Amino acid sequence: MKLKRGFASDNNAGIHPDILSAIAGANDGHCIAYGDDPYTAQATRKFKETFGDDIDVYMMFTGTAANVLGLSAIVRPYQAVICSDIAHLNVDECGALEAVGGIKLLTVPAPDGKIVPGQLGRFLAALGDEHHSQPKAISVTETTEVGTVYTQDELLSLSEFAHTNGLFVHMDGARLANAASSLGVGLKSLTKEAGVDVLSFGGTKNGMMLGEAVLFFDRELSKDFKYIRKQGMQLFSKMRYVSAQFTAYLSEDLCLLNARHANRMAKLLASRLEAFRGIEIAHPVEANGVFAVFPEKYLDAAKKEYFFYTWDPMGPVVRLMTSWNTTEGDIDSFMAALKNA
Amino acid sequence: MKLKRGFASDNNAGIHPDILSAIAGANDGHCIAYGDDPYTAQATRKFKETFGDDIDVYMMFTGTAANVLGLSAIVRPYQAVICSDIAHLNVDECGALEAVGGIKLLTVPAPDGKIVPGQLGRFLAALGDEHHSQPKAISVTETTEVGTVYTQDELLSLSEFAHTNGLFVHMDGARLANAASSLGVGLKSLTKEAGVDVLSFGGTKNGMMLGEAVLFFDRELSKDFKYIRKQGMQLFSKMRYVSAQFTAYLSEDLCLLNARHANRMAKLLASRLEAFRGIEIAHPVEANGVFAVFPEKYLDAAKKEYFFYTWDPMGPVVRLMTSWNTTEGDIDSFMAALKNA
Amino acid sequence: MKLKRGFASDNNAGIHPDILSAIAGANDGHCIAYGDDPYTAQATRKFKETFGDDIDVYMMFTGTAANVLGLSAIVRPYQAVICSDIAHLNVDECGALEAVGGIKLLTVPAPDGKIVPGQLGRFLAALGDEHHSQPKAISVTETTEVGTVYTQDELLSLSEFAHTNGLFVHMDGARLANAASSLGVGLKSLTKEAGVDVLSFGGTKNGMMLGEAVLFFDRELSKDFKYIRKQGMQLFSKMRYVSAQFTAYLSEDLCLLNARHANRMAKLLASRLEAFRGIEIAHPVEANGVFAVFPEKYLDAAKKEYFFYTWDPMGPVVRLMTSWNTTEGDIDSFMAALKNA
Amino acid sequence: MKLKRGFASDNNAGIHPDILSAIAGANDGHCIAYGDDPYTAQATRKFKETFGDDIDVYMMFTGTAANVLGLSAIVRPYQAVICSDIAHLNVDECGALEAVGGIKLLTVPAPDGKIVPGQLGRFLAALGDEHHSQPKAISVTETTEVGTVYTQDELLSLSEFAHTNGLFVHMDGARLANAASSLGVGLKSLTKEAGVDVLSFGGTKNGMMLGEAVLFFDRELSKDFKYIRKQGMQLFSKMRYVSAQFTAYLSEDLCLLNARHANRMAKLLASRLEAFRGIEIAHPVEANGVFAVFPEKYLDAAKKEYFFYTWDPMGPVVRLMTSWNTTEGDIDSFMAALKNA
Repeated sequence: MKLKRGFASDNNAGIHPDILSAIAGANDGHCIAYGDDPYTAQATRKFKETFGDDIDVYMMFTGTAANVLGLSAIVRPYQAVICSDIAHLNVDECGALEAVGGIKLLTVPAPDGKIVPGQLGRFLAALGDEHHSQPKAISVTETTEVGTVYTQDELLSLSEFAHTNGLFVHMDGARLANAASSLGVGLKSLTKEAGVDVLSFGGTKNGMMLGEAVLFFDRELSKDFKYIRKQGMQLFSKMRYVSAQFTAYLSEDLCLLNARHANRMAKLLASRLEAFRGIEIAHPVEANGVFAVFPEKYLDAAKKEYFFYTWDPMGPVVRLMTSWNTTEGDIDSFMAALKNA
Repeated sequence: MKLKRGFASDNNAGIHPDILSAIAGANDGHCIAYGDDPYTAQATRKFKETFGDDIDVYMMFTGTAANVLGLSAIVRPYQAVICSDIAHLNVDECGALEAVGGIKLLTVPAPDGKIVPGQLGRFLAALGDEHHSQPKAISVTETTEVGTVYTQDELLSLSEFAHTNGLFVHMDGARLANAASSLGVGLKSLTKEAGVDVLSFGGTKNGMMLGEAVLFFDRELSKDFKYIRKQGMQLFSKMRYVSAQFTAYLSEDLCLLNARHANRMAKLLASRLEAFRGIEIAHPVEANGVFAVFPEKYLDAAKKEYFFYTWDPMGPVVRLMTSWNTTEGDIDSFMAALKNA
Repeated sequence: MKLKRGFASDNNAGIHPDILSAIAGANDGHCIAYGDDPYTAQATRKFKETFGDDIDVYMMFTGTAANVLGLSAIVRPYQAVICSDIAHLNVDECGALEAVGGIKLLTVPAPDGKIVPGQLGRFLAALGDEHHSQPKAISVTETTEVGTVYTQDELLSLSEFAHTNGLFVHMDGARLANAASSLGVGLKSLTKEAGVDVLSFGGTKNGMMLGEAVLFFDRELSKDFKYIRKQGMQLFSKMRYVSAQFTAYLSEDLCLLNARHANRMAKLLASRLEAFRGIEIAHPVEANGVFAVFPEKYLDAAKKEYFFYTWDPMGPVVRLMTSWNTTEGDIDSFMAALKNA
Repeated sequence: MKLKRGFASDNNAGIHPDILSAIAGANDGHCIAYGDDPYTAQATRKFKETFGDDIDVYMMFTGTAANVLGLSAIVRPYQAVICSDIAHLNVDECGALEAVGGIKLLTVPAPDGKIVPGQLGRFLAALGDEHHSQPKAISVTETTEVGTVYTQDELLSLSEFAHTNGLFVHMDGARLANAASSLGVGLKSLTKEAGVDVLSFGGTKNGMMLGEAVLFFDRELSKDFKYIRKQGMQLFSKMRYVSAQFTAYLSEDLCLLNARHANRMAKLLASRLEAFRGIEIAHPVEANGVFAVFPEKYLDAAKKEYFFYTWDPMGPVVRLMTSWNTTEGDIDSFMAALKNA
């Protein structure tokens, strides 16, 4: 089946050939199920090489699960998680954190996708008062939902605020590789070294078939996590096939290379869009997302040929994502469609 | 990596080559995520060819999720599910049904893995009394946890009891193909035509990389299930890669052929074991599981070379599972290990 | 024990003598537990006289429970409840709706405590999209958290919006009597006749010892509610003692008389406060709450002698509540304390 | 209203006059809500006098809540509670522990209502295996559901087993006073001194209007319990009215005196029943419950005039409970009804 290549989401792209090879390469003989296999041991070593030795790694299927279960390990139902009002966790998980974790979200506005410590002080007034959910974690998305990137300094200021006040820092790193690549730093720099306690590390949006990992940078926090993962319906019997993907993904900088390509394509896409009168880039293009205000005629023209998401249900902002296998030809085709308008 | 081939579980075997090809074959271009893709449409058609047109199909990752979410669609937290005391749902899901669904389990003893209507009447006394969880579904496992198989007649007697009393029938069909193959009937015969309302249909234990499906034979029951799946953290963005596996799995009887082979190997394994003085087959070998009482010397000898599960923590029953790629040589090797005793 | 009379909350006042007599009056002989008693039958009749025949009534202990369980009857965990950002449900229940009901809250700003249909259209864009919690109910608080009152027209405009779009209307009526008394209308006028589907009707803040009731104006919605109440840990074995209170509360307009008195005291309190230079009334005093901006010297002086709540943790607004037994002398004493400043 | 006095349940009896006086006595002036009041402080002192200083006490409304929330403080959803198969917690809470706490129950048969350490070893095999709910507490009911009483020695053997294996001991003490009175020991002797960690202490069935308390004998376990109680919808705004009852209940041995009377009446009832040919006492009458096998003619005769519970839905055992205000005349009347048979 031949399908239209587009910009609806980075998860519309397929599997990177190295990842597909890794799956096939793991398909040899019998392996003990549920992670007690050499492929998972190898992937775990790769994670430790990348993020530091003193960590715990748990692989799972979806980013939703990585976020919900990772937070469930550190936040009890009478506690709360602070995040931006546009956080994926808040708007795109169909209430999974509330329903599965029983956890309340407290939100702050974040027009550019990022939250800053100055917004958070007011939540501390609830501490100790049984009528209010007790703030226990801050969750940030890297890269943010509007394609911007937290720098290490920005993250450090948040984690310092959090730790000073007894809160943990969780990062939804579905596109962490794009952020690291954008800033030219390593994955560790924006996570362990930025004060993050628990990380949802994504693979699916950047060339893997499927696979997300929850990383704990303080192993005390994960001591019961194997039960949480199993009860959370995310324990993969044939885990070797996710593990082998992660080994490939973390080897020879594949994840950073994929991200770099996607980021570069986003810059190109944005610059090409800016040539159209009336199209305006709505947020700085710092990673692999381009958010643009489309005048109606362009919107109509694009929609005729492409599927993509309008970001604000009441407004004209479209979200265009580039991926590890976006080509310049894909961008040319999209421009051609717009020119028909 | 070369790994010891054994009998610990059918999920220790790898991916069938046709399934692996199907994954690779789906890796072409971009696809809309979350199931709105032609591979998922194709798989859905295959399911309808196999199980009947008027059904709803939802793919997910794990059998735990298929059971928990499928039941959550039809049972509210103040209601209960009746199952056998050795049901996987009761003993092997780390309490997922209780924690995620909030649902209570009511159990009956089932030495041969099967439950019968005569055991269930006593639960009906609770109906209408607010102090008691209200029985709302019966869950059966096909093949059972001890390798036995419900016939269509046995299932019909349960579903008649259930429907007469306002209960649904759920089937944990992680090894449904093995049951169908054992009885020489089709998958539909043991499900839709046996009065099952909701089915967890397994692929992972029988040659797929990963993939379970929840099938609703009454579409009224599934009208909100897409939200339940998403909130249950089981919505796969790159769904095409599970769907393509299911298409291959359901084509040219692959799932039944795989099951038939595994079943045949189980019979062979059992007959070879019976030659050992003191080893006794504990349950009829009707599918791909062999449950045997091992005298200690054989247990010790086998454990030296093989990993497997002892079934009853207090007793000497071992569970040996055969799979789609178990070979006669694998059985020879196991016998050789026992002969060393 | 003699205690300082003040304005911290209407639930700091004790039990109205008629209510206390009703408790004592019900203490005669044995009664079948859990509501199958004549006192509960009598209270139910009183509710029907007041709110209409075709309703269901369930008594419980706390307003939190009435809100959480009433909403749990009509909203599933993958659905959402829309309310104001200052709704008690959102900020003062320690996350009970999320934890017990698994339900997500969607909030809109409401500087005057009230929400209007024009704010809600944007939530409808989520309908049908599995990534988003599905809006299923609007919850309003009457009187609002800042002491203002929804008129019947305002409620009708919300319920028309709700019902047109497949949503229910829930009212947190912890202080419904104060609203009705303020507007000079009956309880039915602001609930059943205003399009409310489910009502949390409060007694505790207005002279009862304890007791809240959930009223369903569409009995189809409550058909399983007895199980939800029991599972929600709110089924009172000696229910007659709550029922007898409600009978007294609904008889001879006691609840409206109590509310009228409290409302009148609030007006008086507000007018006395306005005499102080710098003290400003922050919200219209429409019921029994007075919200006022206190200059620091008055705040300090009042705090020396009185306990009360500052409303905004970052600002100087104090909340003063009058009750069924607030006296003019109580207000005089408070003024005297302020004059010391 | 004059109502038939009977033996359906000890919660069918009303409020003891001293308790009613205590409620009226607390109705003086204003009190800060939610427990920050002198009546609650006084009750807490009484609890400490009775059970020891180093404890935490949390009052709530229902026994269901005391059990579910007390256990939720010490057991996470991926852990399990072991109890008898006839435990109230297992059969009479409408699945509240599973739905509200997300906690799985593991049951053992207990024909006489009691469990013993020898039954529990098999559950330990699950420890450390992520597929199984992890046993974390044992819950015992004192007096048991069939009216028998655990001695201190029996409790100590259970608590030693529990603590040796990292489990907590929870007691459902809805009728603890009856047990203590039966054994002629103090409340502390069967709880803190018997190794109990968390106690649900009942008042409602023994003369209070309403009120249950959760007691923590290790205060580390309760450090977040105030949030759990609030979120569990059990924080009473006018707490003084439960506290005042408990003060009276724990003063001058009222709770033990009430229990002693009820126990004595049960012995009398049992001895009177034994005079009927064919009526057999099914369990030792050690507290205030009489379980008896009634031949059909007596069952029919009794049912004509009395409401009571048949215990086993499939069998002829009736449960008769005596209360703090059962009179010899009540027993005479019941005997008269039987004699009509």
